[in-house]
Amino acid sequence: MTVRTAAPVRWTAVQEHLQDSPLLVAAGGGRPERTPVWFMRQAGRSLPEYLAVREGVPMLESCARPDLVTEITLQPVRRYGVDAAIFYSDIVVPLKAVGVDLDIKPGVGPVIADPVRTAADLQRLRPLEPGDVAYVTEAVRSLVGELGSTPLIGFAGAPFTLATYLVEGGPSKEHARTKALMLGEPELWAGLMSRLAAISAAFLRVQVDAGASAVQLFDSWAGVLPRRLYEEHVAPWSAQVLGALEGRVPRITFGVGTGELLGSMAATGAEVVGVDFRVPLDEAARRAAGKPLQGNLDPAVLLAPWPVVEREVLRVLDEARDLPGHVFNLGHGVLPASDPDVLRRVVELVHERTGTTAG
Amino acid sequence: MTVRTAAPVRWTAVQEHLQDSPLLVAAGGGRPERTPVWFMRQAGRSLPEYLAVREGVPMLESCARPDLVTEITLQPVRRYGVDAAIFYSDIVVPLKAVGVDLDIKPGVGPVIADPVRTAADLQRLRPLEPGDVAYVTEAVRSLVGELGSTPLIGFAGAPFTLATYLVEGGPSKEHARTKALMLGEPELWAGLMSRLAAISAAFLRVQVDAGASAVQLFDSWAGVLPRRLYEEHVAPWSAQVLGALEGRVPRITFGVGTGELLGSMAATGAEVVGVDFRVPLDEAARRAAGKPLQGNLDPAVLLAPWPVVEREVLRVLDEARDLPGHVFNLGHGVLPASDPDVLRRVVELVHERTGTTAG
Repeated sequence: MTVRTAAPVRWTAVQEHLQDSPLLVAAGGGRPERTPVWFMRQAGRSLPEYLAVREGVPMLESCARPDLVTEITLQPVRRYGVDAAIFYSDIVVPLKAVGVDLDIKPGVGPVIADPVRTAADLQRLRPLEPGDVAYVTEAVRSLVGELGSTPLIGFAGAPFTLATYLVEGGPSKEHARTKALMLGEPELWAGLMSRLAAISAAFLRVQVDAGASAVQLFDSWAGVLPRRLYEEHVAPWSAQVLGALEGRVPRITFGVGTGELLGSMAATGAEVVGVDFRVPLDEAARRAAGKPLQGNLDPAVLLAPWPVVEREVLRVLDEARDLPGHVFNLGHGVLPASDPDVLRRVVELVHERTGTTAG
Repeated sequence: MTVRTAAPVRWTAVQEHLQDSPLLVAAGGGRPERTPVWFMRQAGRSLPEYLAVREGVPMLESCARPDLVTEITLQPVRRYGVDAAIFYSDIVVPLKAVGVDLDIKPGVGPVIADPVRTAADLQRLRPLEPGDVAYVTEAVRSLVGELGSTPLIGFAGAPFTLATYLVEGGPSKEHARTKALMLGEPELWAGLMSRLAAISAAFLRVQVDAGASAVQLFDSWAGVLPRRLYEEHVAPWSAQVLGALEGRVPRITFGVGTGELLGSMAATGAEVVGVDFRVPLDEAARRAAGKPLQGNLDPAVLLAPWPVVEREVLRVLDEARDLPGHVFNLGHGVLPASDPDVLRRVVELVHERTGTTAG
C-alpha cells in the first residue's frame, strides 16, 4: 500500500497537527493513511452513556450546557475510535439563540410558536452574534483540548432546512407551505433565506473560530425539491454560508434523497459532498463533479446480522475505490435501535481494509 | 391539432365504449383527444363532501361499505370532471380481508397488532378469495354503472409497501426493520413477498373482474431502496402482480422518490410509469424505457397563488410534449389543505391546452 501522504491543501484555520489527519487529507483530495470514518448522529440515542447523561435534561438545555455538549460529543469518539467528532447540537439552536420562540418536543421535533410567513415575521430573525452562543465557543474550546489528534466537525443546518421548520411551524413530510411560499412569494423567500444564511454562517464561524477543523452543512430536507427549484431558490444561500469559511476548513454538505441534486450541491462550494444510500458512490461521483464524497452505508443495514453488515461495508468501500477522496459514513443518521458494538466493528473493518498496514 | 385517434391497443377486460377514452388511449401509447387528467388522492380529505360522508365513520369501515365507496369515489369525478375515477380504498384493506389484525388510527395510519417477522408469522397471510371482499365487487359494479364513459382505475398497494407496514408494525420513516429483514433473511423475505404478491394480484383481479378498466399499483415506499435492492428483492414480485393482469387492462405503477428506480419500475411490465415531482418528465422519459408517463405536478404547488399554479401546469405539459403518452397527475397525493377550486381549474387548464379544440 501507499505510504502516508501529506495533505495537498493547508487550511488556514486548522491547527498544524490536524492538517494531516485522515479526514482533512481526504477532504482535500489527498491520499490519507486510512479511509476516515465517522457516523452522522454517532452521538445520541443509540448510546447508553448518552441516554444516561441526558436523563431528565431537555434537548435544548443539553445543547446549551458546555459540560454536556463536550461529554456527548466525546462519547462516540471514545467508544468507536472514529476519525472525527461532530459537534453535538440541534439544527434549531441558532434560531433559539437569536430569540425565536421554539421548543424541541420529545417524539415530535422542533415546534415553532409563531411560524414565519410574512415580511413582518422576518424581523424576528436578527443576526447571530458570537455572544448569543458563548456556550458553543466554550464547548468547542474544551472539546478541541480533549480531542487531541481527532478533528472536530462543526455543525449547522442549511438555510433551506431551517426555513422548513420556521415556515411549517415544525417537522413536516411534504414541506408544502415552504414550497408554496418559495414559489408564491419569491421576494419574501429570498429575504428569509438571506437572514438564515447569515445566521447559519455565523453559527459555523463561531465553531471554527473556537477550533473546529471542518464543518458540515446539513441541508437535510433539500431532497424534497426538484433541481430547478433547488438551484434557483436554495443553492445561492447554501453557497453563501459555505463561502464564509472558504479556505479556512474543509466543508462538507449533505442532504437526504438528494440524488438529483448532487451536481448542484457540489457547485455550492463544499469540498466534500455527502451521499445518501440511494445512489452508489461510483454513480454519485459522476454527478458530483469529481469531488471527494462522504457516505453511504444505509443505516438500516446495521440492524441486520454481522455478515450482511460486513458485505455491505465492503461494497461501499469497493464503490469508493476510484473516488478522488472518500470519507466513510452512513447514508443518513445512526438509528436509535442500532447496536453500538456493530458500529465499533464497522470502524475497525474500514480501518483494517483501508489502512497502510492493510495488505 | 390532430383529430381523435382510436386506441392502438384493445384491452380484453375493458368495455368497448371505454377503449377510446383518453386515459386508455394514452396508456396504450396512442394519441388521445385530450391529455387525460386525474389526481392521486382526488377522493379524500381535501373535499368538504368527503368529510361530510366520513363523519363518524372509521376509515376501514368506510372502505367496506359499498354505498360509501361508491359515493366517495364519484365525488371528485362530479366536481372536477377528471378523466378517471380511482377506486376508494386503503392500502391495508386486502390484509384486513385475509384476517390480519390491524386498524387505521387517525393521524397515525395503519397499525398492525402483531408485526410479521418470522416464518411462523407468514401463516397469517392466507390467499385472498373474492368472497373476502364481496363489498369491493359490489362497489365496483355500482361505480361502473354510475361512471358511464369515465374509466375506473383499480387500486392496490404493491408487495413491498404492504410488507413495510407488516414488518414495521405501522408507518415508518426509515423502514429499517424491513430492510434488515430483506437483507438478513432473504428466504423469509421472499416468502413474505410471494404471499403479498398473490394477495395484491387477487385484490386487483377482483376489481378488474367487476369492471375496473385500468389499475394502479402503489409501490409508495419503494423509493427508500437503492436500485440494486429494488431489482433483487422487490421488482420480481411487483412484476408478478402486474403480470396477472397483462393484456386485460392498462397497468400504472407509482412510487414516491423513485427517480433512481424508474427504469427498473418500467421493466416490471406496467404500461404507464408514474413519476413524482423530483424528476422532470422529459428526463424521466429517458429513464423509463420510453413508456407513457403519469405525473408530475408537485402537490405543494396547489397551495401557491393561481398564476404560479398555471405556470407550473404549463411547464409540466411542456416537459411532456414529446412523451409517447402522458397522463396528467400530481407527483404525489392531493394535500388535505388544497383548495378544490384550484384542482378544478387545473383540470380545465389541461383540457383546454391539450384538447382537439385547443388551437
